[in-house]
Amino acid sequence: MLEAKNIGLRGIKVADTRISDVDGEKGVLIYRGFNVIDLVRSSTFEEVSFLLLHDRLPTQEELRSFKSALASERSVPEPIFQFMKMLPESAPPMDVLQAAIPVLGSFDPRLHDETKEANLGKAIGLIAQLPTVLAAWDRIRNGLSPAPPVPGLSHAGNFLYMLKDSIPDPGMAKDFDLCLMLHAEHSFNASTFAGREVASTHAHMYAAVAAAVGALSGELHGGANSEVMKMLLEIGEVQRVKSWVSERLRKGGKVMGMGHAVYHTEDPRAGILREMCKRLVGLTGDSRWCELTMAIEGATKEEFRKGKGREIYANVDLYSASVYHMMGIPKDLFTPVFALSRISGWAAHIIEEKFAEAQPKPELYRPDADYVGTYCGAQACEYVPIEERSE
Amino acid sequence: MLEAKNIGLRGIKVADTRISDVDGEKGVLIYRGFNVIDLVRSSTFEEVSFLLLHDRLPTQEELRSFKSALASERSVPEPIFQFMKMLPESAPPMDVLQAAIPVLGSFDPRLHDETKEANLGKAIGLIAQLPTVLAAWDRIRNGLSPAPPVPGLSHAGNFLYMLKDSIPDPGMAKDFDLCLMLHAEHSFNASTFAGREVASTHAHMYAAVAAAVGALSGELHGGANSEVMKMLLEIGEVQRVKSWVSERLRKGGKVMGMGHAVYHTEDPRAGILREMCKRLVGLTGDSRWCELTMAIEGATKEEFRKGKGREIYANVDLYSASVYHMMGIPKDLFTPVFALSRISGWAAHIIEEKFAEAQPKPELYRPDADYVGTYCGAQACEYVPIEERSE
Repeated sequence: MLEAKNIGLRGIKVADTRISDVDGEKGVLIYRGFNVIDLVRSSTFEEVSFLLLHDRLPTQEELRSFKSALASERSVPEPIFQFMKMLPESAPPMDVLQAAIPVLGSFDPRLHDETKEANLGKAIGLIAQLPTVLAAWDRIRNGLSPAPPVPGLSHAGNFLYMLKDSIPDPGMAKDFDLCLMLHAEHSFNASTFAGREVASTHAHMYAAVAAAVGALSGELHGGANSEVMKMLLEIGEVQRVKSWVSERLRKGGKVMGMGHAVYHTEDPRAGILREMCKRLVGLTGDSRWCELTMAIEGATKEEFRKGKGREIYANVDLYSASVYHMMGIPKDLFTPVFALSRISGWAAHIIEEKFAEAQPKPELYRPDADYVGTYCGAQACEYVPIEERSE
Repeated sequence: MLEAKNIGLRGIKVADTRISDVDGEKGVLIYRGFNVIDLVRSSTFEEVSFLLLHDRLPTQEELRSFKSALASERSVPEPIFQFMKMLPESAPPMDVLQAAIPVLGSFDPRLHDETKEANLGKAIGLIAQLPTVLAAWDRIRNGLSPAPPVPGLSHAGNFLYMLKDSIPDPGMAKDFDLCLMLHAEHSFNASTFAGREVASTHAHMYAAVAAAVGALSGELHGGANSEVMKMLLEIGEVQRVKSWVSERLRKGGKVMGMGHAVYHTEDPRAGILREMCKRLVGLTGDSRWCELTMAIEGATKEEFRKGKGREIYANVDLYSASVYHMMGIPKDLFTPVFALSRISGWAAHIIEEKFAEAQPKPELYRPDADYVGTYCGAQACEYVPIEERSE
């Protein structure tokens, strides 16, 4: 027996993985051997998804066929839209996504096929369909008809198109593609671990992905990017940043988007998003959010140096908020958009869990705990019939 | 860093819990200080649910009010039925349940209220509504109208009523109540851990419960009771049991329902269900399933003694299968019925995770892993543009 209470399994290696590596000291994130910084400079979300699923970059022919599989799976069964039309418009988009996943599974003829090939097919189906579901929900809750996916646009471009029913600016679509690549994978984070945990019971991929979506929705995980947006809206003006940040820290609060459990230097993704933020100011002419975010980053760093004598760095969520906002994505869609990207990493991990090469096969996750509750000795407490209990 | 690879966190204590204690050596299962054997003799699922949620037995007044809260939450919003009518009739009931949970959440005005009181309310809502959802799905997929819950029946009786649209035999309803009590809680099993893991990110209860349902669906976990029924149907006759079991074990296969990761003696729940099996033979006049199950238990024990020189014991799933079958529950509803019971344990654990008394608060679950994938040295692999890659 080993005591590892309340530390969230930090520092406990539960498996080998070939999928990604995070070097928190150097601030390096590797997907299947490639630095994420190199990938976002030259690759696409489609290629990165192939890489994550197949453990190597595709040939031209393989990428063509992967893209055409995505295109052919992008439409969702009509009942999905009918289902959404019956939901209250207040239904949180993460919850709609979580509910839609087992429904998509029930329409998938591959559902009960547990070969690796079928699981790769389910992965492509989920990567292709989640953006369609999410964009449709945003339109339906606003009383609009879903915009069907269009051929010829990238995966990223298709989402922006389906959201607005209008062809996106190519530069913005490319930047959104970059966001999707950046968020696609991050080792055994809480949502990925939830997906692997469910897959370890031999549940199918849809059940596991729905669990991962649930974990991502928490504000300590994927929910953080919407929390950053709430903070930007609350502060409102650059002049208010300094006093807001010092007040917040003085009260023992956190500045959302700053600091990371794994990175002890700058999150490599934050720099890319900071550059993108500036680029989007050029495109949209609206510098407010980007300036506000930089001011928050600066003020928080200064407060940490002064008050705590240590450095703090922006994480992936800080600039995501203003970037998504400038792309016209509603703030309660930020976390679901994270899911549209992370689905590639989740699927790769679920497949790794299901087809692990380790012998014996990995056990299902079932940790231990210490019972510290009511104890009446070895015989257990006496059950007193309700009519004899003292009130 | 600690190496604990592929062992599914077995033997690693991740938290303190006041909810339940499993003594695998003595075969004792304790809910909040009470032996489950004492509870099933004298209590009801409603009282056990109160106990699990409140850490003590209720007074008469408290139990009355708990039952009336359940009764008032038993109906589900009409759109849930419309949603089910659009699903393919092949949709697995566990997937329908997993999808329905976030939908129920989206209709719950308490959804975003994270007080303990609101979480207890959500727990009562889920305990009350899951049986309604499941019974309705079985009727809808068979072209029948859902039967609304009725006042005056117990929680267990209501489920059997809603499933068949006919008042159940009181003895059978009492036995089903007993099954619900027996399956309500079992410490940090895979589904409960999945629920706690999701709650550790501060996701809401519906998101966490949907994850737990996903984990329960796996055949290594809750899915095992349906697998037992498949085995009973495959073997078919008592005369075939011996040869089937020895053939199965000779080939390195498992006999479903036999053996347990935690119990090294008889699972205390198995004995209760064995007695119930015999009792239901008296009620239904059909001894086939119970005799077949006892023959399988006997043959497996004998093979283990002879072949492996050790004992093996029935677990909770072995007799559940024939018991549920004699109650007229379809075999693909066995695992969802497990969920109707375990929801009380899940909710108690999710509340314990959210309102843990430990200081500092438990961290979100985020284990480590060893990267063993492609490695090109500290600089990472060179990204070669696709047109320059060798085919």
